[in-house]
Amino acid sequence: MIVVMNPGAKEKEIKKITDKLEQMGYGVHLSTGENRTVIGVIGQRREEAAQAMEAMPEVEQVVFITRPFKLAGREFHPADTVIKIGDITIGAADLTVMAGPCAIENEEQLLQAAEAVKAGGAKILRAGAFKPRTSPYSFQGLEQEGLDFLKEVRVKTGLLIVTEVMDQFTVDQVTDCADIIQVGARNMQNYYLLRELGKIRKPVLLKRGLSATIEEWLMAAEYILSGGNYEVILCERGIRTFEPYTRNTLDLSAVPLIKQLSHLPIIVDPSHGTGLSGLVPAMSKAALAAGADGLMIEVHPNPQEALSDGPQSLTPKQFQSLLNELKGVALSVGKLI
Amino acid sequence: MIVVMNPGAKEKEIKKITDKLEQMGYGVHLSTGENRTVIGVIGQRREEAAQAMEAMPEVEQVVFITRPFKLAGREFHPADTVIKIGDITIGAADLTVMAGPCAIENEEQLLQAAEAVKAGGAKILRAGAFKPRTSPYSFQGLEQEGLDFLKEVRVKTGLLIVTEVMDQFTVDQVTDCADIIQVGARNMQNYYLLRELGKIRKPVLLKRGLSATIEEWLMAAEYILSGGNYEVILCERGIRTFEPYTRNTLDLSAVPLIKQLSHLPIIVDPSHGTGLSGLVPAMSKAALAAGADGLMIEVHPNPQEALSDGPQSLTPKQFQSLLNELKGVALSVGKLI
Amino acid sequence: MIVVMNPGAKEKEIKKITDKLEQMGYGVHLSTGENRTVIGVIGQRREEAAQAMEAMPEVEQVVFITRPFKLAGREFHPADTVIKIGDITIGAADLTVMAGPCAIENEEQLLQAAEAVKAGGAKILRAGAFKPRTSPYSFQGLEQEGLDFLKEVRVKTGLLIVTEVMDQFTVDQVTDCADIIQVGARNMQNYYLLRELGKIRKPVLLKRGLSATIEEWLMAAEYILSGGNYEVILCERGIRTFEPYTRNTLDLSAVPLIKQLSHLPIIVDPSHGTGLSGLVPAMSKAALAAGADGLMIEVHPNPQEALSDGPQSLTPKQFQSLLNELKGVALSVGKLI
Amino acid sequence: MIVVMNPGAKEKEIKKITDKLEQMGYGVHLSTGENRTVIGVIGQRREEAAQAMEAMPEVEQVVFITRPFKLAGREFHPADTVIKIGDITIGAADLTVMAGPCAIENEEQLLQAAEAVKAGGAKILRAGAFKPRTSPYSFQGLEQEGLDFLKEVRVKTGLLIVTEVMDQFTVDQVTDCADIIQVGARNMQNYYLLRELGKIRKPVLLKRGLSATIEEWLMAAEYILSGGNYEVILCERGIRTFEPYTRNTLDLSAVPLIKQLSHLPIIVDPSHGTGLSGLVPAMSKAALAAGADGLMIEVHPNPQEALSDGPQSLTPKQFQSLLNELKGVALSVGKLI
Repeated sequence: MIVVMNPGAKEKEIKKITDKLEQMGYGVHLSTGENRTVIGVIGQRREEAAQAMEAMPEVEQVVFITRPFKLAGREFHPADTVIKIGDITIGAADLTVMAGPCAIENEEQLLQAAEAVKAGGAKILRAGAFKPRTSPYSFQGLEQEGLDFLKEVRVKTGLLIVTEVMDQFTVDQVTDCADIIQVGARNMQNYYLLRELGKIRKPVLLKRGLSATIEEWLMAAEYILSGGNYEVILCERGIRTFEPYTRNTLDLSAVPLIKQLSHLPIIVDPSHGTGLSGLVPAMSKAALAAGADGLMIEVHPNPQEALSDGPQSLTPKQFQSLLNELKGVALSVGKLI
Repeated sequence: MIVVMNPGAKEKEIKKITDKLEQMGYGVHLSTGENRTVIGVIGQRREEAAQAMEAMPEVEQVVFITRPFKLAGREFHPADTVIKIGDITIGAADLTVMAGPCAIENEEQLLQAAEAVKAGGAKILRAGAFKPRTSPYSFQGLEQEGLDFLKEVRVKTGLLIVTEVMDQFTVDQVTDCADIIQVGARNMQNYYLLRELGKIRKPVLLKRGLSATIEEWLMAAEYILSGGNYEVILCERGIRTFEPYTRNTLDLSAVPLIKQLSHLPIIVDPSHGTGLSGLVPAMSKAALAAGADGLMIEVHPNPQEALSDGPQSLTPKQFQSLLNELKGVALSVGKLI
Repeated sequence: MIVVMNPGAKEKEIKKITDKLEQMGYGVHLSTGENRTVIGVIGQRREEAAQAMEAMPEVEQVVFITRPFKLAGREFHPADTVIKIGDITIGAADLTVMAGPCAIENEEQLLQAAEAVKAGGAKILRAGAFKPRTSPYSFQGLEQEGLDFLKEVRVKTGLLIVTEVMDQFTVDQVTDCADIIQVGARNMQNYYLLRELGKIRKPVLLKRGLSATIEEWLMAAEYILSGGNYEVILCERGIRTFEPYTRNTLDLSAVPLIKQLSHLPIIVDPSHGTGLSGLVPAMSKAALAAGADGLMIEVHPNPQEALSDGPQSLTPKQFQSLLNELKGVALSVGKLI
Repeated sequence: MIVVMNPGAKEKEIKKITDKLEQMGYGVHLSTGENRTVIGVIGQRREEAAQAMEAMPEVEQVVFITRPFKLAGREFHPADTVIKIGDITIGAADLTVMAGPCAIENEEQLLQAAEAVKAGGAKILRAGAFKPRTSPYSFQGLEQEGLDFLKEVRVKTGLLIVTEVMDQFTVDQVTDCADIIQVGARNMQNYYLLRELGKIRKPVLLKRGLSATIEEWLMAAEYILSGGNYEVILCERGIRTFEPYTRNTLDLSAVPLIKQLSHLPIIVDPSHGTGLSGLVPAMSKAALAAGADGLMIEVHPNPQEALSDGPQSLTPKQFQSLLNELKGVALSVGKLI
């Protein structure tokens, strides 16, 4: 941490600040420039200390020189995290495809979707029983009934299940039927939920918040990791910008950046990231080429009848043809799909 | 709802769409332009229907011509909502000031803050017992202990209490000690929480999400209203933009816009909205001049020792002097403070 | 400037960097923390030096501790800049209102608008002869003919004129008929134009770019100031965000922030800032309460016939009534209008 | 165009609007829903007409159902535009790589960069003689001297040249030495420049503005096309968002979206798009996989000595190795590099 004093700060003012820092247990190191004195602060990064400094009238600004994340960062954990679930690995050369409908609507729709996903070659089924919806008048999900359908389909098809949990009190309920627990974009900073997920021992898929910075996203992962659950998969799903043609702006630069900053696997959701099924194939290829560890894609047996997100869902046929096209792209960056 | 067909759509394609709309229970009205046929759809707005239409390959786009909010909208509820708590009214000519520290740190700090708030002339104390924090290593709030302190201070000072609830399962706990229940920006789309708050009969202060549009914000209010709780106070607290000098960009145009679109009262939080105590006085005045029904301001007995948000907190002295300055501005727009 | 070395940087690597800095003429000051070495760099801030440092593989990041603007900053120019034109002052207790139509359409429309502006009590007429338009098929302005109309109206009404210049080669042409030269948002970073405006001796109204940070805006002012023209008036006119209900998001916190960072006067344009005439009165009041030195407001004799920006223009009657309401707000913050 | 009347609009009010539309030469088509009357307007899209309608107090909103671009759109020009320069084609299966330093610093630096670019296998050299810089104190480019160096290097190496023009008055000067004329992001809406480029007969590379929507970008292309110059190459180079780790957010979804909406070729600049050389390889691959027609990459013989943009420049060695890696990705999407 660096504390920058106001221009022309007097010796007495500087001493007030360094005394306070020493009281807080920090070492200090003065550096006097042409107009400003800068205090190098030696010790652990703490938000509270930085805020206290910023609240001092003698201080112009406080600058952090270390990242706030520790367990999520590559600095102290250089090797990639690879997550194993049954015979599947996430974060290794073998790419992961999760696919399925946005929402579970009924047993038949789910089974048809699951069979399409399996036929396409994917091994993980995505489908939501709890649906966060902007409008109270929209379909809100089948909840426990949906989870029950997931369980059956899991047995029938052998697919692994990823599904969303919406609060800390349904974690057990969801964990009971899912192989991977999904945290949606709107819940990325639901800290009670994150803490609860720190206690379980199943992988968590953590979607990036709609307007979350990379740093906030890794701090959300830090909540889970600091609870002792080291299996976090990040999922880029688009951020909110001024561009109206796409539902969100898919930030693919997050992929190589996360690979530099963190050891956690990262997958990409081009369906929510664009909101338009016509853009999903191109953005799926781009995501793999950027180095993503996998994809999460919406597939619906009949998008025109979907209760949610039809416009961004692929048909089974489109999905199968996309997976075929992805093989070449994967190979070109040294991966398999 | 308007369904725009692809350019050059054939009669058969148009019929397919109008048939489907009629099946869904809608009336249809064809309008054929130079390049495109447009279908006017008569009936209730439903997201599901719009998405189904957008997923049809024959359809270019779907355009809504009504707003999605009903109970929150002024169209069917022209008169302003005025909320009464004891001898206080919110949403009327008498402006409301809520002030206090970001977090409850201990009994003494809370009492000092409360006294400063009261001395300044405000009647509602804000202070958080549950604190959503970006970092798992930051102070997370005193929780029940903090609520207990609030109760005592309420009795001692006669101030009303507004405090944040973070999930649907602590609603009772918080309602027990608070006069107004606050929903924080990160929870604006926590639908379980919103639904629970629809069931209680105490006013809810609903902060705008960090990147929520006005429409999404009113839809979050709609969740609460549609549960039967008609006492929702909106709170603008800044949105996320590219500008780094301020913590957020306070969107004051939301104030007159909300007044046009909705009958609900709206207050402004210039402390979170800017993140800089030096900007709070100017933005407080601006908020009142824009027509806000009140303010929420962070006040701390000693900002330099605050465990949270010191840099944006006013000292008791600054707060008192601000309230004096606000009187003239309030009068100039026909209000009292 | 602070150079942060990679974690675990070796002595030899640090020496390479300090040698290079010394070669560039900087003094250096080492500070060694728990994980990182930080180099305090003493000397003038230069972007080139910072970029050279960031391009070194041994360097993690470079942090500036001074602002890039000099002449525009308050640090070396504490007193407010007050601009005098005839018997008008801008930046003092007497607030400035500039009003008029977006575009000059014909002589009669301009004269009617000017009379409305004068009747309302404003002393400066705004109207554009050169119009930057998103579509090549839209009305592009009357150019020299429009400037001629402005000249006539200036004589007839005694109003001062502010009008936009779109490139460095029409500066003379525009200066010939205008009292204040306006730089539009799209030209805020047209450096050739800015440099040319540094050479003239008339006040320049510099609008904030659509997605310009405060720092970039002040750097654009710095271009003009560094050419020797010290009369720059800043104009906040809204920034681009994700909110679709308003044309832009008017960033009123820029007003008190500019007042802290800079000595230049700042006015606010609520017409472009919101795009909706219904929001202009509230945002005009808010701007004055926030401390703005004046307003720029679109007024059209007949908004429904306007060739440009009708939806955000006030009628003469609305304008007159707004100016009356503004008097109280101005007084409440110690100003006159 | 659709005109939506206020809820409950009376017959007389509706007639006022339809009369006015008919006066303007439009056909009208009424459609009456439960709460609102909607007027389908038949005839050419014109911004002026829409704004006039929006300014009517009886009208709630105006909705466009056609895109504003014509010549740039695929609707009336279904086949891809392919641009031929010598033996190079842009927009076909053979991908285009433009590479070189941000700024021309001196003859030797330019020649070294050009040789690196050629050795890497690229056929087009990029380098700027005119440099738009945020600070007036930064290096502003060599201007004519730089153009002269470009001419020499063009002869010596046989590389084609792409370089930026900053205003309408240097178009001849730049056209004289360049094979492709670049319009920078800050000039995307410099309409005088765009119109001048409509008159020349050399390809124009049009960068997307920092906060330009896809629609505004295509409208900027429309300016050039409507002047008679049909050779426009679009270049995505990142948009401004709230994410601070990257200089911009590279919007790769623009690539498939532009391919749907327009027939113009599109290339991607991952150097400006990210600002970090370490992210350039991944984002170059992603861009090709997304369907881009080529890349523009910053290469500097010695990034640590660069006068501009060193941190985002590749070394000659890194560039050569990247081009090798790109071959496989190109093949996987049916292209050649």
